[in-house]
Parts: sequence; C-alpha cells; structure tokens
Amino acid sequence: MKQPHVFIILIGYTILFNSCEKTTQRETAMADSTSVVSDPLPSWNETATKQKIINFVTEVTTEGNSKFVPAEERIATFDNDGTLWCEQPMYFEVVYSLEATTKIAQKTPALLRKPELKALASGDMKTFMKSGEKGILEAVAISHTAMGIDEFNKSATAWLDTARHKRFNRKYEELTYKPMVELLRYLRVNQFKTYIVSGGSSMFIRTFSDEAYDIPPEQVVGTLFKGDFTQKDSAYNVVLKPEVFHLDDNVGKPIAIYQFIGRKPILAFGNSDGDLQMLQWTSTNTRPNLSLILHHTDSIREYAYDRKSHIGKLDKALTEGQKKGWVIVDMKEDFGKVFSYE
Amino acid sequence: MKQPHVFIILIGYTILFNSCEKTTQRETAMADSTSVVSDPLPSWNETATKQKIINFVTEVTTEGNSKFVPAEERIATFDNDGTLWCEQPMYFEVVYSLEATTKIAQKTPALLRKPELKALASGDMKTFMKSGEKGILEAVAISHTAMGIDEFNKSATAWLDTARHKRFNRKYEELTYKPMVELLRYLRVNQFKTYIVSGGSSMFIRTFSDEAYDIPPEQVVGTLFKGDFTQKDSAYNVVLKPEVFHLDDNVGKPIAIYQFIGRKPILAFGNSDGDLQMLQWTSTNTRPNLSLILHHTDSIREYAYDRKSHIGKLDKALTEGQKKGWVIVDMKEDFGKVFSYE
Repeated sequence: MKQPHVFIILIGYTILFNSCEKTTQRETAMADSTSVVSDPLPSWNETATKQKIINFVTEVTTEGNSKFVPAEERIATFDNDGTLWCEQPMYFEVVYSLEATTKIAQKTPALLRKPELKALASGDMKTFMKSGEKGILEAVAISHTAMGIDEFNKSATAWLDTARHKRFNRKYEELTYKPMVELLRYLRVNQFKTYIVSGGSSMFIRTFSDEAYDIPPEQVVGTLFKGDFTQKDSAYNVVLKPEVFHLDDNVGKPIAIYQFIGRKPILAFGNSDGDLQMLQWTSTNTRPNLSLILHHTDSIREYAYDRKSHIGKLDKALTEGQKKGWVIVDMKEDFGKVFSYE
Repeated sequence: MKQPHVFIILIGYTILFNSCEKTTQRETAMADSTSVVSDPLPSWNETATKQKIINFVTEVTTEGNSKFVPAEERIATFDNDGTLWCEQPMYFEVVYSLEATTKIAQKTPALLRKPELKALASGDMKTFMKSGEKGILEAVAISHTAMGIDEFNKSATAWLDTARHKRFNRKYEELTYKPMVELLRYLRVNQFKTYIVSGGSSMFIRTFSDEAYDIPPEQVVGTLFKGDFTQKDSAYNVVLKPEVFHLDDNVGKPIAIYQFIGRKPILAFGNSDGDLQMLQWTSTNTRPNLSLILHHTDSIREYAYDRKSHIGKLDKALTEGQKKGWVIVDMKEDFGKVFSYE
C-alpha cells in the first residue's frame, strides 16, 4: 500500500471521514485492487436477486438519492445458522456441545447420575435423544457454563480446528457460505456495520466470527447465559451459570437488537421462522430497508429444506416474505458458489 | 480536506487499515490541524496524572513496544454519571424521570391511586421521598416503559433541550466534563473503541451520547428493562416493560461487558463504588491495562464528595485504587477546566 491517496480516490472520501467499522486489510486490498466496474459479489449468479441487493446498497449509499441513509444508520443484522453457514443435519454448536458434554460427563460422577447424561457419556445416543430438547439444552448449558471464558474458548477452538462435518468431510468453518461472506464485506465497504444476531450463543460464535466473517466479538448478539462475578484471591472472573439470560430467537431477536444495539437495522437477513420477527421489525424501519431470506433449495451442493424441516424450519417467514416482497434468495439459482472450497 | 494523503501521513497509516471506530469529522479535523507536538488533552493540567494517561496510550499504541496492544483489543469503558458528566445533587436521569412521571401521573387516574405517585403528581416531594428508593425506581420505570422508543426519545430530548441544572443554571448536556470528552476523543484517535458502561438506562443515555461524547447508541451499555415485541395491524414495535432485565451497576458492569461486548477492556474509568468490579476486572486483563477513578475534590467548580456521599459514594474503590496504584484523578488538581463553557 504505497499510494494511499489512490486507494482513497478509488473508494471515495466518505469511508474515511464517517463512522467506519473494522475495515480489514482483506477488505482494503479488495477495494484497492478492484475498480468501480468490478463485481463486489462474484460468487452470486447474475440474477434479479443480486441486482436487487446491489440496487439497494447503491441507493442508500448515494448522497442525493431519495433513499440515501446516513452511514451511522446502516446497521445490517444477519442470522448465523443456515444464513451465514450450514446448519444441517444439526446446528454445529449442538454437535460441539454434545461432544464436549460427553467428555465432561465422563469425568464428572455427579453428572453421570442423570440417566440422559450417563447415556450420552457412554455413546448411547438413542437413549440420550429420548430426553429430547431438554436433554440437548442441558448438554449445551454444561458445555458453556461453570468455566472461565479462556477454558471455553480453548475447548471450542480446538473442536473447530479438528472436527469435521460428516457429509462434506470439511471443517465446520469451511462451511460458511462464500456469497454471504462476500455480501458482508460488500456492506462493510459501503459503511454498513454488520452484526450477527443468532439463536446460537454469543460465546460460541465469538470464537470464530472474526476469522470467518470479519465480525468482531462486540458485533455478535446471541443467546446469553446469566453471569456471576467471582473473586478468588486477586483473580476476578465472569463465570456463566446454566441459566438462560436471553434467548435470542423469534421475538428475542428484535428485542435484543433494540436493547444491545439501540438502532433498528436497515437490512436483515435470515433463513428460518426464528428470524421472522427480526425481518418484520426491520421492514418497518422508516428508512429504506431490505429484508432477505435465504431459501435452501440446493440438495446437490448443500441441502433443500423449508416448511417441514425440524432444523431451520422456514414456513411462516416464507409465506410472509413472498407476500410482502422481501428478497427470497434461492440458493440453487442465486448462489454461483456455495462454499469457498468448491 | 483537499489533500487526504497529507492527513494520512499526519495521523499514520494504521488508522486507515485497522479496526476503526467512528472517527468523526470533529476528530479528523483535530488530528489534521494538530501535529505530533500539540496537546491532545488541553483541558488537563500538566500533572503526573495526565502524564500517566499519555504514557499508557503511547505505549499500547506503539508497535514494537513491549506493551503494544493490537487495535481491535483496545476497548475502553467509561461510567457516565459522575465520570463523564456531573451527577449531583441527584442523577440527572432521575430528575428527568420524576418530572416525566409527574406529567404522566397527572393524566393517568390509575397511577394517582398510588399514594406516592399522587404526592409526586401534586408536587408534594416530601411525601413522595418517604417512599425512598422504591418510589424513585417506580418513577424511573413509569417514565421509561410502556411507550414506543420514539415517544421516549422525544420526551427525553425535549427535556434535555430545556431543563436546567439549578446550581449552574446550565442545560444538563453542558455539564459534561471537558477533560473527559477530550480523553474519549484522544483514545478514539488512537484507535480505542470507547464504550459507556453506566448504571443509568441505555435508552436515556442513547438520546444524547452521540452528541455529547461522539459515542453511538451501539456503544452504550446501561441498565435495561425487559422488552416485548408487539404487533398492531402491520406495525411492529419493541416496547419495554417496567421490569428490570439487567441492572448495570457493581457486578452487573463486568458481567454486561462480558455478555454484550465480549472483550475485557484495557482501560476502565469510573468514579464510585458502583464501578469497582469493572475496574477490578479490567485490572486483571493479561494485556497492559489502566484503571482510573475520578475523585470529586472540587467544591468550587463542581462538588467535593467521596466516602460518605449518598450519590456517587466512593469508598471501597478509593481504598482499593490507592492500594493497587490505579490512577486517581483529582478533579481540583488535574482538571484545568471542568466544563466547556468555563
């Protein structure tokens, strides 16, 4: 980067002198090596969907345009599971939790007294699964709480570095959607502030969001456990308890955006009924706004599922999105590539 | 700004290519018009305190220095009442709440059935104050909840635009501390991300934090009420309920920083025992860190209070800060100016 003024002319002065979020070296390099005519979304097919996204971003960022939105109000919120990365056949965080809790239970006699955890520890998944959602939530809580953040991070990071998705035989971080990562970057280059607003836990997502999406920990809003502030000698720690403080799904999403971010998004992107209220709320922003749904239609390259799926059920939101003219992204038609390794 | 490359050379390349927070035009102009030798903290006296702050910022931002901290980890958290603006003789937000609730109660028969609210509505403060903290919290809840955010913002903003502090005969926003506003700006120019972490409500602080401190809504962490997502015809709203969701004081501060920001600060600044746990937690960051306390010692220009004060009590934190070598800012000695109108 020897001629920074050339870079500035390329991407416009505004990015320097307004609110700007983390513009990483990668993004800077991208903005630098491309020109006005280059394609900011190369992994998207040339469909109407892509054009709608580009038109929206162009309109809200063009001063003088009737749809112009000041940079500081360009808040964009993205669901994570099924929107930024794959969520089938099971949420990846749940896969992690079951594996981590298996190991914890194996060496914790008190936990082995519970039949469902004893089954989990011995690999008897059939018995464990009979405990249903309750058992899964219990495993998630055990794997996320009663330990320092360093211990949690170490465990989750080690898992992400080694575990592999059975069908794709890839590490989970490789299963982020390339077109979505491009979209996040395109928005940031246009001075959007990009947030994850996920039903998954903030703690888990923060272990990889910076690397996977260039989204820093402070822009991750997820499900939260209650915390305790502990002191041991002169060491102070925040340690989480196995009690949910905030469930970031359905109505929890707009409520958390209001409480933690304090601004209504102008762009929201989800893929399931759990995102419906975030999309509804965004669609009532008095500023120009865009609500988008990723519709999983590609059983060859990824998965095809919607109204009847147990994971990532998309029924009410699809009906409402179609009715209201939200952008329904058809993975099969609109994604040129799905994963970056393709 | 006709020669942006000159600006870049002045403030260094790094600010462009790393995580950068809102760098406002004001800050840019400041960085542009000043040179390396100019004073980033002109309203601070030339004391050891000022030098400690400048040394810390210089060390953590100088690459190659053993205390260097990467830009993305430069999180700074500031208490608001008594740290960024005056809090005497009563928290300004409480003054607002009592006035707003008086008006609401006067036109709401159901509320007038409660003796303490009837007293408040009729201006009988003596009777109202007998209800103690419970009555005050009730008034805060009534003035903050059961209305849309637009209605709340309109009411709070109108009050801030007109109400005056009795002793100083100034609008409350004029009672922000000039040296602290300079410090916030100095930190941001050095790529710190500045947050407010306050016992006051996020909603109230967000109505003025951008204007007063250049801190946007999404960097305000405060006390939160529970939320409801409501639908009326095709209008969707988040409406708060009169139930506390998160009390952002004492242990609530480090817990909220952990949950909402997800990083441990390297700098924290408070003024009362309510900030103690935030300062303790920050002081155990494995990165170089600085904990600071504003000690109100100036009865002439502001107020002098500490160990026995009802509002802003500074007792345990003062003892611990002195013992641990935290920076105790002495308002009388260290502040050249207190308010910007001086």
